[in-house]
Amino acid sequence: MREFDIKPLDESLRATLQGKIDNLTKPKGSLGLLEDIALQVGMIQGSLSPELRHAHHILFAADHGIVEERVSLSPKEVTYQMLFNFIEGGAGCNFLARQHSIELELYDIGVDYDLPEQYKSLSELKVRHSTRNYLYEAAMTPQEADKALEAGAEAVDRSYRKGCNIISFGEMGITNTSSSSLWISLLMGKPLKDCVGAGCDHSGGIVAHKYDVLNRALQNYKGDGSPKDVMCYFGGLEMVAAVGAMLRAAELKMIIVVDGFIMTACMMMAAALNKEVLGYSLYGHQGDEAAHKDALEYLGAKPILHLAMRLGEGTGALCAYPIIESAVRMINEMSSFDSFDVSKYFD
Amino acid sequence: MREFDIKPLDESLRATLQGKIDNLTKPKGSLGLLEDIALQVGMIQGSLSPELRHAHHILFAADHGIVEERVSLSPKEVTYQMLFNFIEGGAGCNFLARQHSIELELYDIGVDYDLPEQYKSLSELKVRHSTRNYLYEAAMTPQEADKALEAGAEAVDRSYRKGCNIISFGEMGITNTSSSSLWISLLMGKPLKDCVGAGCDHSGGIVAHKYDVLNRALQNYKGDGSPKDVMCYFGGLEMVAAVGAMLRAAELKMIIVVDGFIMTACMMMAAALNKEVLGYSLYGHQGDEAAHKDALEYLGAKPILHLAMRLGEGTGALCAYPIIESAVRMINEMSSFDSFDVSKYFD
Repeated sequence: MREFDIKPLDESLRATLQGKIDNLTKPKGSLGLLEDIALQVGMIQGSLSPELRHAHHILFAADHGIVEERVSLSPKEVTYQMLFNFIEGGAGCNFLARQHSIELELYDIGVDYDLPEQYKSLSELKVRHSTRNYLYEAAMTPQEADKALEAGAEAVDRSYRKGCNIISFGEMGITNTSSSSLWISLLMGKPLKDCVGAGCDHSGGIVAHKYDVLNRALQNYKGDGSPKDVMCYFGGLEMVAAVGAMLRAAELKMIIVVDGFIMTACMMMAAALNKEVLGYSLYGHQGDEAAHKDALEYLGAKPILHLAMRLGEGTGALCAYPIIESAVRMINEMSSFDSFDVSKYFD
Repeated sequence: MREFDIKPLDESLRATLQGKIDNLTKPKGSLGLLEDIALQVGMIQGSLSPELRHAHHILFAADHGIVEERVSLSPKEVTYQMLFNFIEGGAGCNFLARQHSIELELYDIGVDYDLPEQYKSLSELKVRHSTRNYLYEAAMTPQEADKALEAGAEAVDRSYRKGCNIISFGEMGITNTSSSSLWISLLMGKPLKDCVGAGCDHSGGIVAHKYDVLNRALQNYKGDGSPKDVMCYFGGLEMVAAVGAMLRAAELKMIIVVDGFIMTACMMMAAALNKEVLGYSLYGHQGDEAAHKDALEYLGAKPILHLAMRLGEGTGALCAYPIIESAVRMINEMSSFDSFDVSKYFD
C-alpha cells in the first residue's frame, strides 16, 4: 500500500500568526472559532495571509454487499439513482456547492450499476461493482483497497491541478453508516453498541436489527485488527477512496474539510495510517449519529456546525464552507491596532 | 409609546410547506435545522418559494452612563473609535457584511461624541449623548425611550424601502452587556448573579466587580418592574432602538436575524412588548456569555451557530446568514420525489 509523505504543520509560524490575529481590532479571542480556523489555515499554507482557491467537493459513490442484510431501510438502487440526481443538480450537495461556488466532482468507485455511455467518465476510477458482504467475508481484497485508495488520491490530484487548495469529500452509498460504525468501534476500541445509530433513516426502528447484524459480522471477523485490515474487511470502496483522498490532500498541503459521521470515520482511518493528516483537517459538522461526538473528540476536532443534519453527500462540509471563508477574510481584511487608532481596547 | 401591529404567522400554510420540504429528495428531516429555517421563512413570507432580498445589517451605537463605574475594562472612547472603524470598513462586522453582500447601515443613537461634519448623517436619529448612570437614576426618560424606539423603527423603514426583506441588528456600546444582564434577569425572573458574565473582555477578572455594581443598581431601582420601565431604567439607547427596529421589522413581515447576547436581550424585551415578534425571528449565534443559553431557551430559539464568539457588532447574525440562504435554496432548488425518480427512498 502506498505511503503518503505528509509534513507536520510548521510550528514556527504559530506565534506570529497568533500575534497577527490578536492584533486585529477586536478583543482577544472574541471571534471564537474563526480565530482557531484562521490560525490553522495560516499554518497549513505557511502564510500570514492565507487564501482559499478553487474549492472542490469530491463525492465518491459505491455500493455495499452488507445491504443484503437489510441494515438500511433504503434499497441499494438509491445509490445510483441519487448519482443521477447529483448529475442533474437537484440534490442536497448541489444547491450548497452552487451557493458557495464550489466545484462538484463525482466519482463512481463501486456503484452496483453501469452508468449509461454519456456518464461513463464518472466510472473511470471504478474498482468493482459493490463490495462483498462482510457478514461472511472481507468486503474487499487488499488489492482492491489499494486501488480504491489510489482512486481517491488520483481524484485529489485532478482537483489540485485545477488550482484547488481547499477540498471537501462526501459520499453516496446505501448502508455506509454501518461500515463507519465498525471502523470507529474498532479504531477507538469503543463498544459497537455505542457506535450504531439510525443513519439517515427517519425512524430509529432499524437500529436493533442493524446492531445485531454488525455485531455478528464483528464476531465472524478473524483478522488482525490492524487499521489496514479493518479498512479492507469492513470498508466501503467510496470510504477507502476518501481515505486515500484525505491522505493525498494532506500530502499536497491542501485544507481538508471533513463532513459528518462517515467522513469522520474516514478521517479516523486516514489518521490511523498517518496521523499527520489531522493537521490539515477542519470539521464541518457534528451530527447526532451515535458516537460522532466521541469520534470528533478522539480526533481533537472542533466541529464548525451543529445543525442536526444527517444526509451525507458532504452537505455538512459544504454548509461550513462560508465560515471558513469568514475566518480567512478576518485575518486578511480586519484592521489592526497598529494601523487603526483604537485606544486601550480591551486589554 | 407606539404600539406595533404584528400579525401572527399564518398557520394555514404550515402543513403544505412541511409537505414540500418532506418531498425533497432526501430522508425526512435529514437537513436538520435547514428544514426548520425553510419552514419558518416560508411562513413569514406566506410562500412555498420564499426568497431573501437585499439583506441589511443595521448597527446601532450609543454610550452608557454606567461606564463611570468601570463595569467594563474598555473605556467609553472605544464606542466612537469603533464607529470610525466601521465607517472605514476594517471591523468584524465589515468583512462579514462584504462576504455575504449585506448592506451595512450605521446609526449613532447616543454616542457620547460629536461625529465630524462628513459623518453627521449617521447621527440624524440620535436621542442624546449617552444614557445616565443607572446606579443612581433611570438611564433614560420614557420620552427618550420613545424616541430611541422610533429611531429603530425609522431605520428599518429605510431598509424596507430599499427592498430589504431580511434584516439583522448589531450594536456598539461599551458596557452594554451590563444592561443586557439586567434586562434578562428582570424579564426572566432569573437571579442577577446567573446573568452576569465577562462580556467581550478577555479575562473574567471584571465579573465580580461588575456584578457588585449591577446588584447595587438593582437594589436602588424603585420602578414597577414592567418591561417598559425596566427598558427605560436600565436600557441602552442602542438597545431600545434595536427593540423598536425588531418590532417594526416584524410588523413589516421581514425576517429578523438576532445576533448574540445583547440582541437576545433586545428580542426578549421586544417580545415582552409584543410576543408576536418571535414568529419572525431567527437566531444567529449562541455564545458562552452567562445566561445566553437560558435566554434563548426562554424564547424558544434554536440558535444557528455555536462559534464561541463574543465580539458583538452583530457578527453572530452576519456569520449565520449563509446558513439561512442555504435553507432557502434547499426549498427552492432541490428536486422532489414527484419530479425525480428515486425509488422508495428512506420511507
